[in-house]
Amino acid sequence: MISALTTDLYQLTMAAGYWRADHVCPATFELFVRRLPSRRSFLVTAGLDQALDYLEHLRFTDEERTWLRERPQFAKVPGEFFDDYLQSFRFTGDVWAMAEGTPVFANEPLLRVTASLPEAQLVETALLAIVSFQTSVASKAARIVRAAQGRAVVEFGARRAHGVDSALAAARASFIGGCQGTSLVEAARRFGVPASGTMAHSWVQAFPTERDAFIEFSRSFSESAVYLLDTYDTLAAARSLVASGLRPPMVRLDSGDLDALSREVRRILDQSGLRSTKIFATGDLDEHRIAALVAAGAPIDGFGVGTALSTVSDAPALSAVYKLVEVRGRGDRDATGVVKLSPGKETWPGQKQVWRFMRSGRAAGDVIGAADEPAPEGGVALLKPAMRAGKRLIPSVPLPELCADCRRSIDTLPEDVRALDASSDIYPVRMSDRLQDARLKASRHRDA
Amino acid sequence: MISALTTDLYQLTMAAGYWRADHVCPATFELFVRRLPSRRSFLVTAGLDQALDYLEHLRFTDEERTWLRERPQFAKVPGEFFDDYLQSFRFTGDVWAMAEGTPVFANEPLLRVTASLPEAQLVETALLAIVSFQTSVASKAARIVRAAQGRAVVEFGARRAHGVDSALAAARASFIGGCQGTSLVEAARRFGVPASGTMAHSWVQAFPTERDAFIEFSRSFSESAVYLLDTYDTLAAARSLVASGLRPPMVRLDSGDLDALSREVRRILDQSGLRSTKIFATGDLDEHRIAALVAAGAPIDGFGVGTALSTVSDAPALSAVYKLVEVRGRGDRDATGVVKLSPGKETWPGQKQVWRFMRSGRAAGDVIGAADEPAPEGGVALLKPAMRAGKRLIPSVPLPELCADCRRSIDTLPEDVRALDASSDIYPVRMSDRLQDARLKASRHRDA
Repeated sequence: MISALTTDLYQLTMAAGYWRADHVCPATFELFVRRLPSRRSFLVTAGLDQALDYLEHLRFTDEERTWLRERPQFAKVPGEFFDDYLQSFRFTGDVWAMAEGTPVFANEPLLRVTASLPEAQLVETALLAIVSFQTSVASKAARIVRAAQGRAVVEFGARRAHGVDSALAAARASFIGGCQGTSLVEAARRFGVPASGTMAHSWVQAFPTERDAFIEFSRSFSESAVYLLDTYDTLAAARSLVASGLRPPMVRLDSGDLDALSREVRRILDQSGLRSTKIFATGDLDEHRIAALVAAGAPIDGFGVGTALSTVSDAPALSAVYKLVEVRGRGDRDATGVVKLSPGKETWPGQKQVWRFMRSGRAAGDVIGAADEPAPEGGVALLKPAMRAGKRLIPSVPLPELCADCRRSIDTLPEDVRALDASSDIYPVRMSDRLQDARLKASRHRDA
Repeated sequence: MISALTTDLYQLTMAAGYWRADHVCPATFELFVRRLPSRRSFLVTAGLDQALDYLEHLRFTDEERTWLRERPQFAKVPGEFFDDYLQSFRFTGDVWAMAEGTPVFANEPLLRVTASLPEAQLVETALLAIVSFQTSVASKAARIVRAAQGRAVVEFGARRAHGVDSALAAARASFIGGCQGTSLVEAARRFGVPASGTMAHSWVQAFPTERDAFIEFSRSFSESAVYLLDTYDTLAAARSLVASGLRPPMVRLDSGDLDALSREVRRILDQSGLRSTKIFATGDLDEHRIAALVAAGAPIDGFGVGTALSTVSDAPALSAVYKLVEVRGRGDRDATGVVKLSPGKETWPGQKQVWRFMRSGRAAGDVIGAADEPAPEGGVALLKPAMRAGKRLIPSVPLPELCADCRRSIDTLPEDVRALDASSDIYPVRMSDRLQDARLKASRHRDA
């Protein structure tokens, strides 16, 4: 359960301000990514399940309210704000969202939240932290899985993650993005995905000889064992393993020239009739190193990827934002689209929808339009109702199902969009005419 | 509370293997960073408090044990492993550690864990995730705070963090590294640090005019308000604020040319006698942008830093590892130092200590030696007992105290080591003669 205080202080000062000004009118915020990182041509949404869970359970404990009212900043805020308003505070708004595992592009809302201003505002911080991190990991996983071209990719990054909860979220998002499993046991248990892993170098070091270590391990794990070969000398270890008489299901290489070593180990295994023994490679891998190994024809059957997945090391943050796009009931009773004109941070007014156009089974381009404009012919609406009046409309989807949906969605992207070196604006995304008009009007209104 | 399953699967298969082989002898692992990231000349330790807390509360629930024994991998592991061994499993080992806030360099153990092989092994994953992330954030904070040269730095990165728990850890570590506060309310509450923040662009957008927005805000927060100026046009907003008759304690600039804008805003404020109104700057800042603004003489009184702190965006992962260095009772009853010879990943055998040598109040160099060699004259031992037989020896230190200790420790580093562009090997760290001999012997033993 995420504490209601897991938010930036200004969300609470603004909430108090809106409450005091009796300005608790409905407002809409949208969560989107301003620009794709330089080495991404699409992102893959993830984290919606945790986001909805957070919204549904949001409330202030007595202890939290007491602590808050004692902060010096709140000295002039009337006690009713804490005793009444925050005491009964719940998220009672509506959420529209893209399904997890959907390919998404810059400026496309992943999530649209409509609620009273203070409610919609308070949840910004946690929604961004939850959704943008998982989205960034799922996107990276999709690239790595593509690079592996059908070979298994397993997420091994828990130890390098930004704390243990981050490791759990990374394992989940990696699986959505196409990984076949995780080393993190708690993630496997919680999310129902396969757990993977057998021995570390320390196992080999803890016995007098490698051969002793391998034989001892086989006593309990003969059918799932992955023997680690590089503790001292990879080829000597491979020969020792072969000589031991074990029938290893798999061996692992974790350092050195993985291309050359995998070929030599393959030869040693094959010469002893161990043709079904697979070779698994790990060690600071990412999509580029994997693509190079695959292109070189290295006989590697699967990859374990750590840091690149769990920290998204080449793009550890997305330019994800959560922006006010509409306020109702300011003077008139109609919805008013709002914009921000800060240099480089301009926004588009009003509630939006994203339509994807398919041509011969392939995604041909997206249109971002006003949520209430007529759906353009042939466009598939990507934002769907996820929560109404604070209640979830969609259940948690089992992760293997999400992963399959994600794979199908990515498969609809054109080949040149999926290429690892595709530029970040290769996929056509257009703002609808109506949205362009609305922005012009809103800017003029502001300039006036 | 962190689940005992928050570990890599191989820790559990190895634990089962050690238990079955009756190889539960004492072993020592050390946690250290192999190489500093390219733009770091030192790191600052953090996360020890959470690490000790994790160790002290580690246990398997019945549900976890039941789930685990049903995994296919464990089919051949005797039921006693789950029913007896894991049922009563506790961390009962000893921990030596550097105090949080200590400057540390490559290859220096931050943490040394001695326990039975399975205990010491199982905790690797979580210890690394906890300690290396907080260490990486505290190190980044120290750089950013130095760049600000006495101006306040506040951590604003929750929304970009790798999930909400990561945001909490980042706020804590940023404070240890020298930040004056955080925007994250739950971090402020949990760790007793100042919370900071007042209004977002959405507040300004939610009112018909900027002036309305500012005046409404002042009703509740006249003494702590930081008025945000860049929603539409920064200089117009500054003039409007001045004309409103408010006496703003502080204004915030969040986009555009912060150097030029801060000068013009300063002039507008000063011309209206608002000389005590401070200027606070935010917007994708890091130590390099802050250093440039300070060097240019921009009249900025404080900085809010987000992504650069909460994701350590230029070095989102440390090459932190947790390596077996000693196993007792393998054949003989004496401790045996162990090494790993994998290319680029070689380790040093045996339990270690780190001594820091001071000259005229300045740190002059470190020696890494064997824990049981005589302390070199004048060397201050950095690793101290933190846990004995599974019980904490040191209490949680209040964060403001840790922050002060950290500032004092960093102040002892020579000026050229603290420079933002110092090379990562500028500070002298030497392996003791005895350690070098031991490594030679261990490698020879392995080669033989």
